[in-house]
Amino acid sequence: MKTLSGREPAERILEDAGQRVAKMARKPRLAIVLAGNDPASETYVKRKLERAAEVGVETTLERLDENASETEILKVVKRLNKDKGIDGFIVQAPLPKNMDYTRIVEAIDPEKDVDGWTSANLGRMLNGLGKPFLPATPLGVIRMLEHYGAGIAGNHAVVVGRSNVVGKPVAMLLLGKDATVTICHSKTRDLAEHTKKADIIVAAAGVPGLVKADMVKEGAYIIDVGTTSVGGKIKGDVDFENVIKKAHCSPVPGGVGPMTVAMLISNVVEAASRRQ
Amino acid sequence: MKTLSGREPAERILEDAGQRVAKMARKPRLAIVLAGNDPASETYVKRKLERAAEVGVETTLERLDENASETEILKVVKRLNKDKGIDGFIVQAPLPKNMDYTRIVEAIDPEKDVDGWTSANLGRMLNGLGKPFLPATPLGVIRMLEHYGAGIAGNHAVVVGRSNVVGKPVAMLLLGKDATVTICHSKTRDLAEHTKKADIIVAAAGVPGLVKADMVKEGAYIIDVGTTSVGGKIKGDVDFENVIKKAHCSPVPGGVGPMTVAMLISNVVEAASRRQ
Repeated sequence: MKTLSGREPAERILEDAGQRVAKMARKPRLAIVLAGNDPASETYVKRKLERAAEVGVETTLERLDENASETEILKVVKRLNKDKGIDGFIVQAPLPKNMDYTRIVEAIDPEKDVDGWTSANLGRMLNGLGKPFLPATPLGVIRMLEHYGAGIAGNHAVVVGRSNVVGKPVAMLLLGKDATVTICHSKTRDLAEHTKKADIIVAAAGVPGLVKADMVKEGAYIIDVGTTSVGGKIKGDVDFENVIKKAHCSPVPGGVGPMTVAMLISNVVEAASRRQ
Repeated sequence: MKTLSGREPAERILEDAGQRVAKMARKPRLAIVLAGNDPASETYVKRKLERAAEVGVETTLERLDENASETEILKVVKRLNKDKGIDGFIVQAPLPKNMDYTRIVEAIDPEKDVDGWTSANLGRMLNGLGKPFLPATPLGVIRMLEHYGAGIAGNHAVVVGRSNVVGKPVAMLLLGKDATVTICHSKTRDLAEHTKKADIIVAAAGVPGLVKADMVKEGAYIIDVGTTSVGGKIKGDVDFENVIKKAHCSPVPGGVGPMTVAMLISNVVEAASRRQ
């Protein structure tokens, strides 16, 4: 079956973004707030900054100590909200311990919230009002499914995981594309019973290897959003090696990861174009 | 099987609200904006005002002509936002034609949005932040299921309908209570295939008699949120007469209707207590 690489669709999105930037009088600028020095975060941030630069988006990295307090991070967020030179910014997860990530995200001006994680943007996504920034990873999942011709409308999609940043928004976006959507999670009694019938599976539980070959339908489309560090390696939620014999599946890494980065940059370009 | 009347659980909620009001130095005040004279709306509004009065909540009815413009309604909304004597208010649906209901709702101060329909409250419901006012009808559905011991956690709930004011929020609330949730709608290929397996069905499609006996599991709990006017009578989405032989089901009227009113008033009392 097909390996659903995120690289090719991500390139297309970045090309589009680059073409938009080329026409702009003022280049967009993305800021990333990075607290601490989690190695995975360093890698993600580096990739985001590099990709942004490639399409002509300028970048600012705001580094904070791993011992930075919530107050200090909030101060940076408030400064970036006011800074007219910044079109959009994100606070890289995970944050140092004992810090409420959602509360920090909530302080971001919704018009600069290019990760689409503030309640203002989530709420607009839900009631279809205004022009919300849609969360980058869920949007990346949808674009990948569309790119590979999965067919969303009328199909049954099962989302495994119900986080605020992936599971719930991806379910709402699939619903907006006319899929029948089931949301499963750790309290679901018989996960396989649901996934077996799915035309589309989005695995976002953060449990390595959770989705196995005998749990999926022949020819289904599976997007793996899992990224759990196991012995220094990033592992997805899908047992890719076996599942790929039966269904179309995205790999980890090289699946939704590049899409997340591309959608983030696309959101920054959109934010800048609204402010030109 | 059990007829899931909304009257008994609604009375309990109103009693609680009344006890809270009795202890307040200043009585809460609810305003209702009513544009036009749709007979069903008149009935709903009358009931809301009466119920509020019964528990000691003061009320204001803001009447507008059926030819009122969107600008005129927005002017009233803005005035109520500023009015310190108003703890919460709603704009009764449906509005006169050619008016964007969501846009008007969006103008309501989230702290006074006791119907819980603004994107601010919906977003907070989604990311679990702050103290959102939860939408009255979806909250009423949950409370009814709890009242009748339906058991939500771990069970499979199928929501039929995906409106911003019922389907989507009720799905999110069920998910928050640990149900596995499937959202079906007009584009769902085989509705019965999904409903047959459900432990809980919330019917909110606005299609009279859509859910029939052969589509439900023996002993399931079914909440009918449908209210379609057919020949002057309000009809639910469930073929109650036949379904009740097989599953526990709420009637229309007398099902979720009283719960909606009770939850609205409960939200007003909550809004007032936050402002005391």
